[in-house]
Amino acid sequence: MKAWNCVAIVGVGLIGGSVGLALRSRGMAIKVVGFGSRRATLETANKLGAITEIAADLNGAVAEAELVVVCAPVADIVEQVRQAARFCRPGTLITDVGSTKAEIVAELEKAAEEPAWGREVHFLGSHPLAGNERKGPQHASADLFARRIVVITPTPRTRNEDRSALAEFWAGLGANVVPMSADEHDRALAATSHLPHLVAAAIAGATPERYVTLTAGGWQDTTRIAAGDPLLWRQIMLANRTNLLASLDRFATLLADWRAALDAGDAVELERLLTEAKRIRDAVGS
Amino acid sequence: MKAWNCVAIVGVGLIGGSVGLALRSRGMAIKVVGFGSRRATLETANKLGAITEIAADLNGAVAEAELVVVCAPVADIVEQVRQAARFCRPGTLITDVGSTKAEIVAELEKAAEEPAWGREVHFLGSHPLAGNERKGPQHASADLFARRIVVITPTPRTRNEDRSALAEFWAGLGANVVPMSADEHDRALAATSHLPHLVAAAIAGATPERYVTLTAGGWQDTTRIAAGDPLLWRQIMLANRTNLLASLDRFATLLADWRAALDAGDAVELERLLTEAKRIRDAVGS
Repeated sequence: MKAWNCVAIVGVGLIGGSVGLALRSRGMAIKVVGFGSRRATLETANKLGAITEIAADLNGAVAEAELVVVCAPVADIVEQVRQAARFCRPGTLITDVGSTKAEIVAELEKAAEEPAWGREVHFLGSHPLAGNERKGPQHASADLFARRIVVITPTPRTRNEDRSALAEFWAGLGANVVPMSADEHDRALAATSHLPHLVAAAIAGATPERYVTLTAGGWQDTTRIAAGDPLLWRQIMLANRTNLLASLDRFATLLADWRAALDAGDAVELERLLTEAKRIRDAVGS
Repeated sequence: MKAWNCVAIVGVGLIGGSVGLALRSRGMAIKVVGFGSRRATLETANKLGAITEIAADLNGAVAEAELVVVCAPVADIVEQVRQAARFCRPGTLITDVGSTKAEIVAELEKAAEEPAWGREVHFLGSHPLAGNERKGPQHASADLFARRIVVITPTPRTRNEDRSALAEFWAGLGANVVPMSADEHDRALAATSHLPHLVAAAIAGATPERYVTLTAGGWQDTTRIAAGDPLLWRQIMLANRTNLLASLDRFATLLADWRAALDAGDAVELERLLTEAKRIRDAVGS
């Protein structure tokens, strides 16, 4: 396992903080430099041991880093990577943890042609399928990535050595690394993450106030992710708008089948739909 | 707290088994007689201490009971209560734990007029908002009802002493008892339980096979209840068909608002919808 001399984490919330804790608990990095917009968050991350030092600015954060992990909201990633790339030394690899990839990867391939982009600085996208409805480094965990999937999104321009280094990085944090094109990632995640989030929020929103006290475990599980940050999720949904619309339309078509079966009192068809859903759910496990 | 000399449990699965365990762990019943169609299930319940004896038939199960708790699938409850009511001694109270109430309560009020219905035997419906996607007494727990809501559904014909006795029974198992008409119960549960179940199943069913490995915690939470028993849920949905159709149509209308906001790229409206959902979800808590 490679040990990194210096990893910079830009944004030390739940995900960034967990990257830091995981790196340090596994002895994978000597220095973990944190940077972010909120001083209090940085101090919490430092106190919890997620980072070894707080940088005063982005320049200082990335200047020594061999790897920069940008853990910003989806809408801020392109700009933060562009800024970071200006200050990195040659050979630095930059990655992100954004929940959408196609727009980010495309825009950063363009940005890498700009004169200000650092010489021999490379970007390769990541998306750890980890995290939950909570926010902030106080919820971070050294085991957040253990046995979770991390998608990395190489393009034809990605160098083999960067691909190997990034795969090794996430594998070192305990993850199962799955390489995939950014487009394919976004199509898949529309179905497995962004649609469930939208629907969970719609279920919560459709619950009449007067009945809220009559919710139980089923409602609570089904709507749990609706407690997530509205700003972050608005950005994710808009960044993956086209794929999410397609997923939503497929879902609405299936929902119409359910309605028809229920309206007709068709017990056979209802049980078939329930059985098919259970088959897929059981295949995933808890 | 009243101690019962003899409680009969008809159907000793997750719910019936938990009633037995809770009664015994709290010293609330001297005898807990179990009856059901599967010998192996009864033996498991007996071994786990959920019941103190196994009855050979329904007659034997209820003959001595002061309280009979029918824990059968929704579609079997009316017939099982009718059968039980023939063999009960005068003064016995019968309840059920069905997830729908209006049909069951209406049919049993009619059945109570039949000559075969035992003299001074009374039915009063219950619905514990507890349970999960698992089945069988091996998953039962003495704490399943602790701090959970149990709805009881008195009618104008319900005697005050039965209402008090049943409320005291569930409160003794740790529950918060909420009396409500059967119709109001079914309207509320359509929104808080039956619709979430249908939608969770539709989300699971709408997930393309090839993307199933890319699911994570959000998908898992949102679809968890889709692992429930298709036969039981088919029965619940059909027994509450009219209310569930109305809830489904309200949900579909809201979903159309989400689609319109997404299609228009309307960040303000998307964030408003997400924020409203989070407000309701946060009010419930985990």
